[in-house]
Amino acid sequence: MPKSDKSFVKEITPQSEDFSRWYIDVIRRADLMDYAPVRGCIVFKPDGYALWEACQQELDRRFKETGHRNAYFPLFIPESFFQKEKEHVEGFNPELPWVTEAGGEKLEERLAVRPTSETIIGHMYAQWIQSYRDLPVLINQWANVVRWEKRTLPFLRTSEFLWQEGHTAHATAEEAIAETEQMLNIYTDFVENFLAIPVFKGQKTPLEKFAGAVSTYSIEALMKDGKALQAATSHYLGQNFAKGFEIQFLDKDNERKYVHTTSWGISTRILGALIMVHGDDRGLALPPKIAPTQVMIIPIGPQKERERVVTHAKDLLKRISKRNIRVQMDANEDTSPGWKFNEYEMRGIPIRLEVGPRDMDAGQVVLVRRDTGDKQAIAIDKLEETVEQLLTDIQQNMYRKAKQFAEENSRIAASFTELDDIIQNQRGFVLAGWCGDNVCELTIKEKTGATSRNIPFEPPTHLQTCVVCGSEAKHSVWYAKSY
Amino acid sequence: MPKSDKSFVKEITPQSEDFSRWYIDVIRRADLMDYAPVRGCIVFKPDGYALWEACQQELDRRFKETGHRNAYFPLFIPESFFQKEKEHVEGFNPELPWVTEAGGEKLEERLAVRPTSETIIGHMYAQWIQSYRDLPVLINQWANVVRWEKRTLPFLRTSEFLWQEGHTAHATAEEAIAETEQMLNIYTDFVENFLAIPVFKGQKTPLEKFAGAVSTYSIEALMKDGKALQAATSHYLGQNFAKGFEIQFLDKDNERKYVHTTSWGISTRILGALIMVHGDDRGLALPPKIAPTQVMIIPIGPQKERERVVTHAKDLLKRISKRNIRVQMDANEDTSPGWKFNEYEMRGIPIRLEVGPRDMDAGQVVLVRRDTGDKQAIAIDKLEETVEQLLTDIQQNMYRKAKQFAEENSRIAASFTELDDIIQNQRGFVLAGWCGDNVCELTIKEKTGATSRNIPFEPPTHLQTCVVCGSEAKHSVWYAKSY
Ligand SMILES: [Zn+2]
Ligand SMILES: [Zn+2]
Repeated sequence: MPKSDKSFVKEITPQSEDFSRWYIDVIRRADLMDYAPVRGCIVFKPDGYALWEACQQELDRRFKETGHRNAYFPLFIPESFFQKEKEHVEGFNPELPWVTEAGGEKLEERLAVRPTSETIIGHMYAQWIQSYRDLPVLINQWANVVRWEKRTLPFLRTSEFLWQEGHTAHATAEEAIAETEQMLNIYTDFVENFLAIPVFKGQKTPLEKFAGAVSTYSIEALMKDGKALQAATSHYLGQNFAKGFEIQFLDKDNERKYVHTTSWGISTRILGALIMVHGDDRGLALPPKIAPTQVMIIPIGPQKERERVVTHAKDLLKRISKRNIRVQMDANEDTSPGWKFNEYEMRGIPIRLEVGPRDMDAGQVVLVRRDTGDKQAIAIDKLEETVEQLLTDIQQNMYRKAKQFAEENSRIAASFTELDDIIQNQRGFVLAGWCGDNVCELTIKEKTGATSRNIPFEPPTHLQTCVVCGSEAKHSVWYAKSY
Repeated sequence: MPKSDKSFVKEITPQSEDFSRWYIDVIRRADLMDYAPVRGCIVFKPDGYALWEACQQELDRRFKETGHRNAYFPLFIPESFFQKEKEHVEGFNPELPWVTEAGGEKLEERLAVRPTSETIIGHMYAQWIQSYRDLPVLINQWANVVRWEKRTLPFLRTSEFLWQEGHTAHATAEEAIAETEQMLNIYTDFVENFLAIPVFKGQKTPLEKFAGAVSTYSIEALMKDGKALQAATSHYLGQNFAKGFEIQFLDKDNERKYVHTTSWGISTRILGALIMVHGDDRGLALPPKIAPTQVMIIPIGPQKERERVVTHAKDLLKRISKRNIRVQMDANEDTSPGWKFNEYEMRGIPIRLEVGPRDMDAGQVVLVRRDTGDKQAIAIDKLEETVEQLLTDIQQNMYRKAKQFAEENSRIAASFTELDDIIQNQRGFVLAGWCGDNVCELTIKEKTGATSRNIPFEPPTHLQTCVVCGSEAKHSVWYAKSY
């Protein structure tokens, strides 16, 4: 019994009506996640986890190509470790879950479930690093981390999430800073070229930097509802953790010195960005590079032609998959072609091929793009090249569209009134002058609800005065409401 | 300053002197792990973690080829969940760590850090499975798990360890049992063909089965000290968890039925087996398929020939890596060739190539096998084929040697005295008749220190009487001292 062609579309609230509901509708309808019976936790269902696996594979390759190796450190961190870096403990203490009993006994020292691993890794590095010959140490870890957040949202902010955290140690500040920049560039390359999401690169203000860092660099992305999302961060930790954990080395000049460390991470929240940057009222839209299925073949036409059409469709599937294109076919007879069209659009598959008897006889096949909805008949003898070319086009077009949206929604504010007006009525990123005083930054946060996203490395313009106090601006800063 | 050629060998206790110390010496000297500052936890250092990554890749491919998909479920499990399967709670309760506080507040319900995920996955499956159309559910999870063990040993038994746990749900018992068997066969194939470790396949006795399972299948391996190690398990859980968590489906006959579930897992303890099956007094010995580096090239000869030799060695490296062989070169001048020979033998690299000026002029290169120590000069124009062939030979030879050792140390006991004598004086696996009574099994455990490993699917012989009580034997059982 074919299901109704349109039934599921009703399940997705239009973005214009309620973006938050649209988001939840889409991730549930596309079967990416489910709520777990533990506060603020989700289950990553196979279709959601497959997206994370694709990210992992891409990132892991980039990390290894730049000389990093994977390792694994314990989930539990003794309470005393958090006391060794003052800012760090203040930043993370409110969010920690504590193991107080184990194996039927009360523990002498409470164990935190890791929110991030600078402390325990710092403790180990102090033992591994003795001489300049042991440097640099370039290690990455794929792991689960926990932060007991008050307000949670699937993928974007959950009590437990998955991420990678890189932790490196260097002989000099210059080297460590170069590493911090290198990793930010790797994240930028990954997010822009693999996920087709344009980013705003810059440095966090002191109020927004990582607890314990000297400086934090970030890439920020703009969601379709005009809110920003921090996509990845890379921290130069200076000698803060080195001093807290006594990570010293004997340098070539025979002096004992503290190392300079970095850390950098990207998490499953990037999946939220992927959905909110590209999705539309029809559902998910996946850039070809990350799409687990890039092409879906759907045989159509009357029952009497079925066998001939399916045989032909199977042949096309074989030809396409020989080019290492991820292609599938849905020849299920329990659902109608119309239902399938909607279903796979909703799941964000970049290309649909409709194979029917008439096109078949004409030596062609109908191809539909998810990004534009364009439909075209293509010659079967050019099938592989056309599909290959189109996947490249779609990837580029999705990036271009997102880039255009980000540009149209990046504005410059000469005054506080202007800043406030844009944030309240248009959202998006707003560049404003800042004197460097925390008070002015906090004023903006309190009065407009926007936070500083970062200080761009290459600002579109250099603003002269702080929009709050009117003194000379030290920096031009991106502000936005954010997730 | 070249380090002394032999210095490190002193750091490894001979196996014959003290096998346990040998094991710890090797894993520390080969830099596979370090002790963590949390009781019973270790750090997987890059060289150790790389072995696990290789296992993951191999297993993940096999799981996906058989239709399984990855997902991720929460780390924390509410206390009440453990009450829903009686045997399960009894089995795991003594080993659980409990989170009792989070985000600055005492939790209303304690959360266990997962020791295994049957309960929370059962809870989710109850919501995902409604109809026979939803079956089978074939999901796997790569995760960290925690069991607060009293006695720990690196890799073999640690408070936190890494593993995969497959969890499937089926409409019928037959299907679920077929899945359980299929996964045991996949583990067998992986352990025997990839890790070159022969295994004893069979079913666990009721006393040794997984807490909550109807039946547990296992593969067991024999370490060089004569002790057994459980390498992987696959459980048919019947309807136990389905009933505990109300996982029901509407079948084709319009009846509501409980599903049949399975679970199966292999963990980082397999790395302990890898080391203890193949290692020797010179250190690690890695089968070529898992070795992160399969061939190590070491340029030798006088300083004045150095440049010419290194250039030539680089050329050989390029040629070999074109065949997708994992090859590295150590041209470091701070350490002597002799030191390098020992170092890479200790690290278990299957093949060493010594490249010197005289061999070079003769159109040959010296090749040394880690498994046999054999040294041979080979013609450079046959280099790639020879290395490729040899890697295959080494893999097979390591399996053959381990298989021979396992066979020589598998004995049949006709009486309790004989069983006890073998266990105390020779160790290894001992097959003995068993009446099926738990009391007889416990008697053997208490009096000999050996536990039942499994009831082989294809026993070498069918024994007639129980070695403890003398009644008719229902099964022939493998007994061994074990890790
Ligand atoms: Zn100001
Ligand atoms: Zn008996």
